[in-house]
Amino acid sequence: MKDLDNLTHFPEKTDILETHEAIKPYINFTPVFTSRSINEMLDVNIFFKCENFQRVGAFKFRGACNAILRVPDSAQQCGVATHSSGNHAQALALAAKMQNLKAYIVMPSDSIPIKIKAVQSYGAETILCEPTLESRETMLQDVVNKTNAFFIHPYNNYNIIAGQATAALELLSQAPELDYIIAPVGGGGLLSGTALSAHYFSSKTKVIGAEPKITNDAYNSFKEKKLIPVINISTIADGLRTSLGEKTFNIIIKHVNDIITVTEEDIVEAMQLIWQRMKIIVEPSAAVSLAVVMKNATLFKNRKTGIILSGGNVDFNSVLQLFKEQK
Amino acid sequence: MKDLDNLTHFPEKTDILETHEAIKPYINFTPVFTSRSINEMLDVNIFFKCENFQRVGAFKFRGACNAILRVPDSAQQCGVATHSSGNHAQALALAAKMQNLKAYIVMPSDSIPIKIKAVQSYGAETILCEPTLESRETMLQDVVNKTNAFFIHPYNNYNIIAGQATAALELLSQAPELDYIIAPVGGGGLLSGTALSAHYFSSKTKVIGAEPKITNDAYNSFKEKKLIPVINISTIADGLRTSLGEKTFNIIIKHVNDIITVTEEDIVEAMQLIWQRMKIIVEPSAAVSLAVVMKNATLFKNRKTGIILSGGNVDFNSVLQLFKEQK
Repeated sequence: MKDLDNLTHFPEKTDILETHEAIKPYINFTPVFTSRSINEMLDVNIFFKCENFQRVGAFKFRGACNAILRVPDSAQQCGVATHSSGNHAQALALAAKMQNLKAYIVMPSDSIPIKIKAVQSYGAETILCEPTLESRETMLQDVVNKTNAFFIHPYNNYNIIAGQATAALELLSQAPELDYIIAPVGGGGLLSGTALSAHYFSSKTKVIGAEPKITNDAYNSFKEKKLIPVINISTIADGLRTSLGEKTFNIIIKHVNDIITVTEEDIVEAMQLIWQRMKIIVEPSAAVSLAVVMKNATLFKNRKTGIILSGGNVDFNSVLQLFKEQK
Repeated sequence: MKDLDNLTHFPEKTDILETHEAIKPYINFTPVFTSRSINEMLDVNIFFKCENFQRVGAFKFRGACNAILRVPDSAQQCGVATHSSGNHAQALALAAKMQNLKAYIVMPSDSIPIKIKAVQSYGAETILCEPTLESRETMLQDVVNKTNAFFIHPYNNYNIIAGQATAALELLSQAPELDYIIAPVGGGGLLSGTALSAHYFSSKTKVIGAEPKITNDAYNSFKEKKLIPVINISTIADGLRTSLGEKTFNIIIKHVNDIITVTEEDIVEAMQLIWQRMKIIVEPSAAVSLAVVMKNATLFKNRKTGIILSGGNVDFNSVLQLFKEQK
């Protein structure tokens, strides 16, 4: 494999293409599904990019894989480090294992035990911290000081953004001429990557961010045109409990057409529809985009709309309980 | 479309090929999935034919579609009739609607309301009866006497069997050179069709029926070489609560290599594994085949094994209960 540079600039068209070539041997080229019944019900034409079928169950593996492949030679010896309670932790652990790099993952002490075990099963070293952002960052700094590990931020990182961009790149080859692509937004890695791919490879395609109303920092930042970070961990869309970073915000403000918010009830309704009609398992964060379509039907009527189903890692008991309450 | 004959004999090779051509415009050509993690965990090589993605969420649509296309001209005027509480009811209702035939569906009064509504939403007329086999058959006879509708049995019918056979026909084209195909067995429509396709199109492939231990009439009939019908409605695999018919039994006894039973716990464990690792929704009946592999690991070790995931129609509340109990 040829050497890849650590990206320190807005990913360009060639960076995304090069990233895709580099990570192809490791990622799943996920399928695009359509649902006759959802299309008929909403009078739309939706193409679902199934990143719930990605390795470790989420698009996060794309970015992690790229970031690992781009670790500078000088840093390879010491391994990599990150903080994450969720999909990025597993993704980075697996990607590091595949390239024989050591990985240190700082995880909040209230992480679900099964997730901590999964990260360890990939050979990564887990370090528990208090469940606050501050404690995470302090602990990470400690780990980096001690080990000299190369820090890979979960989303505010151009390598990560370029990796996440490959989901939309594939989607646009599988379903060309899309009028819209909708991606959920938390830290903004997926949304910024999606916006870059649409910009470079299908400039007429509009990109919309989908966000839970109760954690609408991306919406506010987008409307106010300045970064207004707020953390609200109460949304059921657990993948979206983070706030935009400076790098993702700057791409989003430039290349995203709109951000639309939906309620928690909308998210559960959309998730239930996907489970019931499409027979696939998606996590709440992945359903936020369909919720946007359901609540803004006229905007998407008769349009070709791509939706990136971000992942499928759920706790079944919690989700099935949500469905029960919804009824 | 050329006229098709109502099949009154063991489906032959050409019947199955002709059936496939005829129903192709109406059915979904469902994908075959593999799971790296399940293969590694069990040291196997499994190809899952995803009939949970079939129209109406189950393989049953294949047989229903074929049966509708083969209704004799003389009977077209009066429509079709069947009794079913489950997937066959919806499948026949939709297939009839697509060919503009009237459909009468006798359903037990304890059917889930959402299923009755689904059948009605396809324009079929539903007739409720007491939840016993006797009452079903009496009521059906009444309906047929009154309407002259053409009776289409849910499985003991060569048109249905030839239709179900097309799932394995496709699977063998998508994953050639299989050592085994496993299909669940209730009434035997899917298993007998699968056995015929393996016999005609891949004679070295062995076919195994997967059955819940607490309703093991197929197992007993197979071992004793005579039809021993027993109805036990207590299995969670609600699609397999029926007993073999004479037509399906005669094919199974001739072309199936073995029938293997599993416990209710095995079924839940397999279902949970499929949901968790593959991120797809399958009904308990569909998980019985994987349960057979999990409990007989050495038999399938390093073998290429096809599994027909029969369907994905579940009641989420019941599944919540099952998963909770398993933990």
